[in-house]
Amino acid sequence: MRVDGKALRSIWPGDGAASVQIIDQTVLPHQFRIASISSLSDAARAIEAMQVRGAPLIGVTAAYGLALAMRADPSGSNLAAAAARLLATRPTAVNLRFALDMMRQHLLALPEAERASAAFARANLMAEQDTSLCRAIGVNGLGLIRSAAARKNGRAVNILTHCNAGWLATVDWGTATAPIYMAHDEGIAVHVWVDETRPRNQGASLTAWELGQHGVPHTIIVDNAGGHLMQQGMVDVVIVGTDRTTASGDVCNKIGTYLKALAARDNGVPFYVAAPSPSIDFSLTCGASIPIESRSEFEVTHISGLASNGGIETVRTVPAGSRASNFAFDVTPARLVTALITERGVIAANKDALAQAFSDRIPRECELLAAP
Amino acid sequence: MRVDGKALRSIWPGDGAASVQIIDQTVLPHQFRIASISSLSDAARAIEAMQVRGAPLIGVTAAYGLALAMRADPSGSNLAAAAARLLATRPTAVNLRFALDMMRQHLLALPEAERASAAFARANLMAEQDTSLCRAIGVNGLGLIRSAAARKNGRAVNILTHCNAGWLATVDWGTATAPIYMAHDEGIAVHVWVDETRPRNQGASLTAWELGQHGVPHTIIVDNAGGHLMQQGMVDVVIVGTDRTTASGDVCNKIGTYLKALAARDNGVPFYVAAPSPSIDFSLTCGASIPIESRSEFEVTHISGLASNGGIETVRTVPAGSRASNFAFDVTPARLVTALITERGVIAANKDALAQAFSDRIPRECELLAAP
Repeated sequence: MRVDGKALRSIWPGDGAASVQIIDQTVLPHQFRIASISSLSDAARAIEAMQVRGAPLIGVTAAYGLALAMRADPSGSNLAAAAARLLATRPTAVNLRFALDMMRQHLLALPEAERASAAFARANLMAEQDTSLCRAIGVNGLGLIRSAAARKNGRAVNILTHCNAGWLATVDWGTATAPIYMAHDEGIAVHVWVDETRPRNQGASLTAWELGQHGVPHTIIVDNAGGHLMQQGMVDVVIVGTDRTTASGDVCNKIGTYLKALAARDNGVPFYVAAPSPSIDFSLTCGASIPIESRSEFEVTHISGLASNGGIETVRTVPAGSRASNFAFDVTPARLVTALITERGVIAANKDALAQAFSDRIPRECELLAAP
Repeated sequence: MRVDGKALRSIWPGDGAASVQIIDQTVLPHQFRIASISSLSDAARAIEAMQVRGAPLIGVTAAYGLALAMRADPSGSNLAAAAARLLATRPTAVNLRFALDMMRQHLLALPEAERASAAFARANLMAEQDTSLCRAIGVNGLGLIRSAAARKNGRAVNILTHCNAGWLATVDWGTATAPIYMAHDEGIAVHVWVDETRPRNQGASLTAWELGQHGVPHTIIVDNAGGHLMQQGMVDVVIVGTDRTTASGDVCNKIGTYLKALAARDNGVPFYVAAPSPSIDFSLTCGASIPIESRSEFEVTHISGLASNGGIETVRTVPAGSRASNFAFDVTPARLVTALITERGVIAANKDALAQAFSDRIPRECELLAAP
């Protein structure tokens, strides 16, 4: 997508495969800073410090991190050590393990002398694959926005989104944002209500920045506001991302998604989830079995922003002595989801529709479990 | 209620009726500062700047504001001008208009020379009446918490509240908090989930502070979290306040209330609204006709808190150039409200039950409108 008028991705190889370039997401939206990753430990620290975040982007960054490790020492023992180091950065991220497993399997089969270049090639391929997935979701979701636009007689289609399921969380396009960027690029009038997304404010700090840089009209709202907007007919469609979706279409996503889904249902607003198939967990049928990460209460009690002196300052918003709770995700039951926007089309959020669309992905044990 | 172990109210006359003392709620929870109001314009500015806020406290502050205006100039024209100035401060809460109408009616019947002292006496009376109302709501709501406690076998009753419908929003006790304080004071184990309540953070900054000062166990959560907590069985009852409730039981309250009501309904959690009768507008039957205040986007784009240097710093959390929207209230339809906790008992949120309980309050024009 575009930053300062130029096309950009969230990660790209630089300098003849001697480094990888990323956008340092810890200082957005107040500073735009490109950081260079030149070693395994650079990559690990970038993930740990959340200079890169978003499950797909973490996976791709780890793949490049392994490639940099192979450039320094392509031995099998270094490959194992490097993978272990990267895996330890965000131990809860499933994509990370998946990317590292795939890289290791691929590289171990090759002579040491070929590993560095093969690793870079594979990391590049993973980045391209992620971009293709997102682009396909964009194409499939675009049809929904076109239909909404046809009912608006030239007025902007109002789309509400939650958190950042944008290109900053992937390599390019994003998931929930891909149909929005495509609609905007083809001249459809769109306007995005951007949920602030407390406590980490990924909506206000990342989604709003992305959309602004690409020229997409948008308005930031507090997470409390979506219901009122829907009651007032000010939202035509909701599109959110997902961290994990079950085989029956229950959607685990950033905390607060469920509340917006309830409001959408109560007001007849379609509620779509942009779900690339790697985020669909066919081994789970019930959203209640998805473990919900509980994060530091500091994220609730403190907030960072641009201070009057131009620096980034962190302030405490709660009384001394008050404690906070910080569940990072919630589960929206499939019954509240109008449809999933996947790379294979717009699919009803239920077991049969998902099984039909992704019959090649369903592990055998799930079929056994599902047998009567 | 208690602050630093001492009983305190949110507003009290000071200095031989030459001024009124308030707690400056804009600097809580980080600083505890008492401010003095000595003129009509002080009172109007205190309401506009939200040094005092909360529908009941706004009404009482406006009454004192009129008294201060009468002290300066007791003429009928000044009374009209002062009332108009105060009415223009905040559009949504109905208490303000009630308080001003009542004061004007009372004062216009008196000789000018008596108006100032009569106005102070009447404002004092309104403060006492508000305290009595809240105490009665506390007694009536206490029964609901006792019942919930009986089902918990000694474990704490988990109560979720939104915004600040606490004693800081009234003169004492609060509305939603009155039953909670009474339950706590009589030894029932209670624990309050305090919605942060963006954008102004009245939950995190005021409700948490109140509860902490009074010793009530509580945990601050982001506004996104309540749905997940209810799904997990971690909320036994929701109690919120109201800025205006219609004759049919539609509840206008702080933005985001509607989302919690939807989640409560979806999870079978009782959703109570503490509604003193002055907040019930019997001239309105439909919540959609309540004007919703739209406030400055600065409240969304910037946030204040305690900086590392010990001062209060305001930081910007959104990208330069991104706009924000800031509707302050939403309307929860009566169908989502389990019951209203009023000073006359716990009453179903519908037209018939409200008309029966408050038959003396229904204006004649409403009865005419309601005729078939």
